[in-house]
Amino acid sequence: MKENKVKVTFLSQDETILVEKGITLLEASIRAGVYVNSICGGDGICGKCKLIIKEGDVTARPTTLLKRDEIKEGYVLACQTEVTGDVVIEVPPESRAKGKILIDKDAQRFRALYAPMKGQVFFKYDPLIQKIYLEVSPPSLQDNVSDHVHLYRSIKRKKNIPNMQSGLKVIRSLPYILRNGDWKITVTLGVRGGTIEAIQVEEGNTTDQNFAVAVDVGTSTVVVHLVNLNTFETMDAEATYNSQMSYGDEVTRRIIYAELKGEEKLREAIVEDINNLITTLISRNNIRLNDVMAVVCAGNTAMIHFLLELDPSNLRKEPFIPVCTYPPPIRASEVGIKINPRGLLYSLPSIASWIGADVTAGILATGLYQADELTMLIDIGTNGEIVIGNKDWMVCCSASAGPAFEGSGVKNGMRAAEGAIEKFKISEDGKIQYTTIGEADPIGICGSGLVDIMAELFMAGIVDRSGKLNPDANERVRKVNGELEFILVPSSQTAIKDDIVITQADIESLIRAKAAIFAGINVLINILSIGFSDIKRIYLAGGFGNYLNKENAITLGLIPDIEREKVQFVGNTSILGAKMALLSKDALDIAYKISKNITYYDLITYADYMNEFMSAKFLPHTDVGKFPTIMKKLKRT
Amino acid sequence: MKENKVKVTFLSQDETILVEKGITLLEASIRAGVYVNSICGGDGICGKCKLIIKEGDVTARPTTLLKRDEIKEGYVLACQTEVTGDVVIEVPPESRAKGKILIDKDAQRFRALYAPMKGQVFFKYDPLIQKIYLEVSPPSLQDNVSDHVHLYRSIKRKKNIPNMQSGLKVIRSLPYILRNGDWKITVTLGVRGGTIEAIQVEEGNTTDQNFAVAVDVGTSTVVVHLVNLNTFETMDAEATYNSQMSYGDEVTRRIIYAELKGEEKLREAIVEDINNLITTLISRNNIRLNDVMAVVCAGNTAMIHFLLELDPSNLRKEPFIPVCTYPPPIRASEVGIKINPRGLLYSLPSIASWIGADVTAGILATGLYQADELTMLIDIGTNGEIVIGNKDWMVCCSASAGPAFEGSGVKNGMRAAEGAIEKFKISEDGKIQYTTIGEADPIGICGSGLVDIMAELFMAGIVDRSGKLNPDANERVRKVNGELEFILVPSSQTAIKDDIVITQADIESLIRAKAAIFAGINVLINILSIGFSDIKRIYLAGGFGNYLNKENAITLGLIPDIEREKVQFVGNTSILGAKMALLSKDALDIAYKISKNITYYDLITYADYMNEFMSAKFLPHTDVGKFPTIMKKLKRT
Repeated sequence: MKENKVKVTFLSQDETILVEKGITLLEASIRAGVYVNSICGGDGICGKCKLIIKEGDVTARPTTLLKRDEIKEGYVLACQTEVTGDVVIEVPPESRAKGKILIDKDAQRFRALYAPMKGQVFFKYDPLIQKIYLEVSPPSLQDNVSDHVHLYRSIKRKKNIPNMQSGLKVIRSLPYILRNGDWKITVTLGVRGGTIEAIQVEEGNTTDQNFAVAVDVGTSTVVVHLVNLNTFETMDAEATYNSQMSYGDEVTRRIIYAELKGEEKLREAIVEDINNLITTLISRNNIRLNDVMAVVCAGNTAMIHFLLELDPSNLRKEPFIPVCTYPPPIRASEVGIKINPRGLLYSLPSIASWIGADVTAGILATGLYQADELTMLIDIGTNGEIVIGNKDWMVCCSASAGPAFEGSGVKNGMRAAEGAIEKFKISEDGKIQYTTIGEADPIGICGSGLVDIMAELFMAGIVDRSGKLNPDANERVRKVNGELEFILVPSSQTAIKDDIVITQADIESLIRAKAAIFAGINVLINILSIGFSDIKRIYLAGGFGNYLNKENAITLGLIPDIEREKVQFVGNTSILGAKMALLSKDALDIAYKISKNITYYDLITYADYMNEFMSAKFLPHTDVGKFPTIMKKLKRT
Repeated sequence: MKENKVKVTFLSQDETILVEKGITLLEASIRAGVYVNSICGGDGICGKCKLIIKEGDVTARPTTLLKRDEIKEGYVLACQTEVTGDVVIEVPPESRAKGKILIDKDAQRFRALYAPMKGQVFFKYDPLIQKIYLEVSPPSLQDNVSDHVHLYRSIKRKKNIPNMQSGLKVIRSLPYILRNGDWKITVTLGVRGGTIEAIQVEEGNTTDQNFAVAVDVGTSTVVVHLVNLNTFETMDAEATYNSQMSYGDEVTRRIIYAELKGEEKLREAIVEDINNLITTLISRNNIRLNDVMAVVCAGNTAMIHFLLELDPSNLRKEPFIPVCTYPPPIRASEVGIKINPRGLLYSLPSIASWIGADVTAGILATGLYQADELTMLIDIGTNGEIVIGNKDWMVCCSASAGPAFEGSGVKNGMRAAEGAIEKFKISEDGKIQYTTIGEADPIGICGSGLVDIMAELFMAGIVDRSGKLNPDANERVRKVNGELEFILVPSSQTAIKDDIVITQADIESLIRAKAAIFAGINVLINILSIGFSDIKRIYLAGGFGNYLNKENAITLGLIPDIEREKVQFVGNTSILGAKMALLSKDALDIAYKISKNITYYDLITYADYMNEFMSAKFLPHTDVGKFPTIMKKLKRT
């Protein structure tokens, strides 16, 4: 056995592992825990998983995705390269996500403990997990009910619980705990569907130690908030990249991976991320794992499928059927999440195949479901989810935007990580200004930067209404291999020793993405026979939404041209909604009602979606009457 | 290791095992699966675990429980004898329970599919487990709910179920089963507290295969009935001895064993018995284990504790507190019972520490809870449980009779097994007539035989009212080692090559047992301020009850002297009640009501119990006015 193993060393990470000959470098990097970008999930088509071979031999399949210079410098695509002997690898900056490095900054970014909503939502604090301290009267010949009945009776004297349950393990523990604890005990109660479960019984008074976590299982980012269930405060937050990225940036890629290799790996990846985040949080806050009694998750339907190891394959095949949209509360340990072994995992309800629990959470957190005025929620990610409604009705749809705004499928695109251009401006005198995350030398462009770049190039007349780069408009426009591109940052100023550019193809990808979302908005508007002016408020949500310049988003035609004060960025409403449900059973019940009462329109069944999409493929739109303020600005210039 | 092992061979069972030097022969016999009687659980005080050493050496502690002749023949007490080298053992007839041999006959005996109750109880058939066949419409873009919602909706169209649940495993299986089964599926629904669980989803129509078992977990006998949940018929029955007997005949002995060695062994023993019986039943009836979806158990409180591995130790310490009297339905696999892995185990509710689910079942099966007239149920075993009541109220108590009527603590006593004297009569001319179970040569005396013997000796004037053997009354009365005894069967006619006798000490044990039960009856009567004549019906239940001569039971003063036609033997009401609950959720609900609504009197707290007990220690009673028909008979003789 040992003879067939070879050493793979990752230089900058100082990691060396033994692997079998013949596996790909991408697989080796996953095993070593070294993050390498990968969008296509190993199909050799995205060209993101570049590595540099510093020493040793490999067998690489030919690819058109590497430049001649890169090949000379030892660049390979990790997924197309097999390990044949001991090898030393360097992961170049553009292939690194730096998930671990950025963890604290990301936590800050996703912290958003209170969303800055105008109409704040209030619920009665009634957490899904509660601890109650009981001083039980010892039994006597006159009062000789069983320990189990004794417990239930004592609980019911303190709390009105019509339907109690408990598992055999808790019942088995009662005689010892009641007597060792001298009839002073703490019971942990958890909401379990229509019943309340006595999850745990402990000796003495442990009510001051009652914690839970809320998790936003994002396609690219996983965020965990640690909540003190006694004070209702968020104590700490932590975030990381979803390691499922190694199996594909896009949800569909991951589903295909799951179909070929089984769902287990995808569950394991996300569960390990969640466990790592929880471990970090509890050790930083001196909390025992055993005192974390629940996990409440929000995420898109596919992410929840991966987490629960539900077969996701029918999500991507017409008629796009999820296995489950209302997962029951289960033991967190059943999927491998490490908290108290009897702790519960709640998954917020999804709405439909492409409208997930994150949208339910968003509706809950923004209070859209109880709004008097007509309100729109736009949650932008790989899919743009659009909700319109108020306290009387709600409709939603999901527009397949593609991952362009997440930096994928765009030449120098990247996720919102250190070195990403997040803001971009062309000043009146034609000077280019930009800022990067972490103020580092730029590596690429994240979603908010792409929106800025698109809007600025358009307003500066460098890109025309049809999205074409004008080769005569600016000296930074050039032609490479027959394709036009705009140099955003010259190589001398970047960390990747190459120019950061936006290509004609990139612009087309981004226009398709914004057109998909705007078409979705329009179809919903048409179905409802209303106009944009009827929308009194737009909530813009998502990790993306934190940095988005709303003026530029309108300029681009991503969101409708309505009064700017009606548009509000609400940050990560997915985790906020999850926390609300955790802290209030009423909120959880409302989440169920939201997911049941909302009408889902599958855009595929609407013939005019394609027309709307085609019309939206202009900047800001074919029908300029839809963007009066933008047209006014254009005329001024 | 191997050097320290020695061979123990059990001659007649043709079993040889390797054991470590130094273990007792009792332990060796348990390991070999060879049944050896043991009442005290290995304390060397009951003298029941006699074995004969045929070859080899052992180290035996001295004992007064073996006769000089026996010691000469190589007899030892298994629990007092350590294995020091290879040894060949014979288990003499009196130490064998013959559980395996008698299994079919026992099944017949305990079959009692319908109890011969006068007022038959009827319930609506509504089994705890139901299979329904669904032809689900495939999903479409217009009807694109999740598989899970689709399933629930289809179920709810067929059945009104307000509160449904299912586990992650079933939800995970849905996409495959729905599609592989071409949307034709069978769902198994199980009652789970206040909710209905979809336990299993199968492809196609499997509704014709839906089975369950009812189990009477008796202290000495385990009875299993196999029930077809479609036809509501009992298809077959099987019984065996409770292998926990190796840990003590008496419940208290087993509790002490559990305290010292842990509850696990006791659970394993009974679970293995149940599994063996189920395996026998399903193979004989060509049923797949996977089609057995539930087990419903009745048994005394301690037996249910052992089955569920609940700590029984507080049952035997004042104030005698059970861990649990209403065990929730759990997966049968959680305690190791082998049926469908997702099948459920229901334990009928117990009433109090010494009033178990078997009494609840008895009240259910006899319909006592809905009787217009005042009715008494007497369930005789190691404890005599007494219930008095009608449709308006019920009270109960448990009298610690001791195991005498089960053949334990009586010199030639034995369980109701082949070779046991079950009927006994002294004819007018003084001739002795008896019958044995299986018509075999007598080995000992079982409970019904002991009642007959006591009554007959009393009526014949051989035993006086105080229970003393009269040495001049009959030539069969003799004195051995200073104690009087009556020769029932001379050694020439027995299978044990020794006389079968009843000793003065035996008679005293039996009188104490009957006095305990009658005192219990009397205390209840006194508490209620009623007379025996107010009791309009007496149901006599228990394995014991199947053979009991009711006239002799009255003669002995075991049960009150009321009109004979009011007394009815109802057989094994424990299993009958369990089956009723299995076949009707209404019956299960009533079982819960019964256990909640009954008032339990702990006899220990009643000062006059001791007086009643002392008064009952005469034949039939100190107060002869309580037994007018018996006194009339006595005067006639």
